[in-house]
Amino acid sequence: MSAAGRVLLLSNSTQHGRGYLDHAADALQAFLGPRGKVAFVPYAEFDLDGYAEKAGRRLAALGYEVESLHRRPQALAEADAVFVGGGNTFRLLHRLYAAGLVATIRQAVAGGLAYVGSSAGSIVAGPTIKTTKDMPIVQPPSFDALALVPFQISPHYLDPDPGSTHMGETQEERILTFLQENDCPVVGLREGAWLRVESGAIRLDGGTVRVFRRGVPPAECVPGPVSI
Amino acid sequence: MSAAGRVLLLSNSTQHGRGYLDHAADALQAFLGPRGKVAFVPYAEFDLDGYAEKAGRRLAALGYEVESLHRRPQALAEADAVFVGGGNTFRLLHRLYAAGLVATIRQAVAGGLAYVGSSAGSIVAGPTIKTTKDMPIVQPPSFDALALVPFQISPHYLDPDPGSTHMGETQEERILTFLQENDCPVVGLREGAWLRVESGAIRLDGGTVRVFRRGVPPAECVPGPVSI
Repeated sequence: MSAAGRVLLLSNSTQHGRGYLDHAADALQAFLGPRGKVAFVPYAEFDLDGYAEKAGRRLAALGYEVESLHRRPQALAEADAVFVGGGNTFRLLHRLYAAGLVATIRQAVAGGLAYVGSSAGSIVAGPTIKTTKDMPIVQPPSFDALALVPFQISPHYLDPDPGSTHMGETQEERILTFLQENDCPVVGLREGAWLRVESGAIRLDGGTVRVFRRGVPPAECVPGPVSI
Repeated sequence: MSAAGRVLLLSNSTQHGRGYLDHAADALQAFLGPRGKVAFVPYAEFDLDGYAEKAGRRLAALGYEVESLHRRPQALAEADAVFVGGGNTFRLLHRLYAAGLVATIRQAVAGGLAYVGSSAGSIVAGPTIKTTKDMPIVQPPSFDALALVPFQISPHYLDPDPGSTHMGETQEERILTFLQENDCPVVGLREGAWLRVESGAIRLDGGTVRVFRRGVPPAECVPGPVSI
């Protein structure tokens, strides 16, 4: 982990029955402070302008100056924080590589830039995108991601439905399959939950998580300081 | 499509409440004939020996001589059919490339080898694996697959649950995201359903499918001859 990294990883940007980022507004303001410049990354979505406008409006209402990197890449160098929005993880990582942003964001976060991710934006903060549930609609040059934290995120974590007759795999089964091939902890981040990482210390809020490690039973964590 | 290709694509190998391949046994026998040599591909699963034994026992009970390609790759050249089992699509395609089987199976099917796929084994029969729902637990050298048929399969197709409060994407939403980036029809193959392709003609049985094309509303198909 980059020792200097300040990172906030949300499972989701919209909670059922609430508006965009409403459930995480207090956490965002506590993390970012009352003011500042935020560089928004809309690359996970198809409609870049529409997404940048939606996020920009919401973050402006919280007190931030927002610029989308798809309009002016130089805004990153002037920003206090980068916000990487959710959507399709493969499209996001493919475009981050195409724009040269993988190395740039990694260096900027090591240098003090605050990082906020939501859903796909949280996955790419991990070492790889190998725990995404998204369809691989485009092929990025590599599955390696920003590696701001030393664990994988599995957002929108859903517990198995014991009444299901569907023979497709559950999210837990998929994560266990990941651990057959990879030795890296996975955080199943339930909707509403987020992790805040500062100076290597991790704090969970907004909900509970299920943590998967190779060779040991999954563990549950409740809000508060957590060790992953 | 390879004009000479004979292809049977199953959504799933196990139907809820029934044994392995029970629901498709009649379709398999109708497609393969009463006897013959089947080369089994276990690469989508972690436990190759266990998977080969399970499939071998079941297919032997249906009257076939079965050899697994992970034990003797040369068995493909002597086989009447290849059966590619389900599991993780990325692991399957990665190992097909590593074993040199992508080009070999494609050529063999063009030359008359019958192809049977189930779940991940059905996905890799399409042009790419870009419609899998599996986690990308390993990185194959390419998302390009066998291209035995000119459409993508999305197996275990689940209709949206109107009562869900979960904010993750539905299978339909994911397929529509695929169509934002790719112009190729996608067959949402519900559990229990399969497609049989011979000389370019496609027949659906066992259940219904939802077909997605770029720019037009999704269409439902019922068992019988279908055009995709």
